[in-house]
Amino acid sequence: MALDGVRALVFDVFGTVVDWRSGVAREADPFLKRHGAGTVIPIGFAPTAFADAWRRRYSPVMEEVRSGRRPFTRLDVLHRENLEAVLPEFGIDPASVPASELDELNLAWHRLEPWPDVVVGLTRLKARYIIAPLSNGNIILMLDIAKRSGIPWDAILGAEVVQAYKPMPEAYLRTADVLAMKPDEICLVAAHNGDLAAARACGLRTAFVPRPTEHGAGQTTDLHADGDWDLVAGDFIELAEWLRL
Amino acid sequence: MALDGVRALVFDVFGTVVDWRSGVAREADPFLKRHGAGTVIPIGFAPTAFADAWRRRYSPVMEEVRSGRRPFTRLDVLHRENLEAVLPEFGIDPASVPASELDELNLAWHRLEPWPDVVVGLTRLKARYIIAPLSNGNIILMLDIAKRSGIPWDAILGAEVVQAYKPMPEAYLRTADVLAMKPDEICLVAAHNGDLAAARACGLRTAFVPRPTEHGAGQTTDLHADGDWDLVAGDFIELAEWLRL
Repeated sequence: MALDGVRALVFDVFGTVVDWRSGVAREADPFLKRHGAGTVIPIGFAPTAFADAWRRRYSPVMEEVRSGRRPFTRLDVLHRENLEAVLPEFGIDPASVPASELDELNLAWHRLEPWPDVVVGLTRLKARYIIAPLSNGNIILMLDIAKRSGIPWDAILGAEVVQAYKPMPEAYLRTADVLAMKPDEICLVAAHNGDLAAARACGLRTAFVPRPTEHGAGQTTDLHADGDWDLVAGDFIELAEWLRL
Repeated sequence: MALDGVRALVFDVFGTVVDWRSGVAREADPFLKRHGAGTVIPIGFAPTAFADAWRRRYSPVMEEVRSGRRPFTRLDVLHRENLEAVLPEFGIDPASVPASELDELNLAWHRLEPWPDVVVGLTRLKARYIIAPLSNGNIILMLDIAKRSGIPWDAILGAEVVQAYKPMPEAYLRTADVLAMKPDEICLVAAHNGDLAAARACGLRTAFVPRPTEHGAGQTTDLHADGDWDLVAGDFIELAEWLRL
């Protein structure tokens, strides 16, 4: 059977488990309307454009940590900094907004919803495997998302636990160490070929689940498996079926 | 209502959630018989005496880490060292036992069972609160115990996540930091007055649940609340009832 010898399935979260773009857009919509963002970008487009712009700043700021120029800093803090940086693009001066309102908007990431197959699929997978997020999101961020939607993780793993951001090898290898498993006893499930490639380079097994609308209807990346991954499944329910669960 | 403003309940595990003494004794029994421990201690007494002796070495070795003389080392590793140290007390030379057999016995701690009220009580408490262990046990040790018995933690917190052993203040305060909560939004539930005192000194709320047979029928410590804790309940189900869950 596929994934023989695997004992833990670890999951990328933003894009793979949750639909961050729709979720952030939904949460940001009233904020943007209230602060007149429609004067810069047509109001119907503003929320998803805002989600995209906020997310676009994710990798560069994380690179500061990955490069060692900045000590490990949890994603909630990076998101909050990026929020202040992105608001001027939408004609909003962050200094004009009460800090508490920005803090509240920053929690948009804590209220993201899973794709419809996630809870059913994970519940089936949990019967045989340890299931845990291996996300760059911090612990309380992952926990809030899971508790709100009933995602039945066995533990919250990821960047904050191992103090390293994907795709650094330490993020995968220290997770294996925490689980007291060899890397090939762990399979990363992700909608991103790059994440899977980094995990495979560390000896993890790999499963690709495409999320073709993560970036909206016009998505051009990660529509297909770019590598010879151990498993490719249409969604988490199909993944459970491939694994006879 | 008691615990107003509390958002997370964190739990001591060894003694409070699981019956470590009976569990280790049960797991060690066949090992001790196989290796003739009955020649030193009457065989009927050996398993619980062995559990007590193994556990007795817990605090001194942890003190090496707490004092800074030794870098943070997870409990599975400390348990394994203590196992080799305790075997001669029972007439067994650890060098005469295959390492794989000692590794297997060390997993006794991963197979501990919860007290009978735990899963029902936690399931009710989970409806309102974030629930997580705040144990000196490491992540995979907590995870294996939980998965085996269906303990529905929202996350696995504790010493390995914050790299500090209770009762050091860092163990409690860094846990609050990870949860992005003020200390008084968190309540420690424990069967040990000392753990609660240390948590209260850090500003956490406190709930005492006695486990009068943790150390067997002749237990003399922690039979009653020694402090003015926020809540005292007979078990986790009564705790849920006090909290109207």
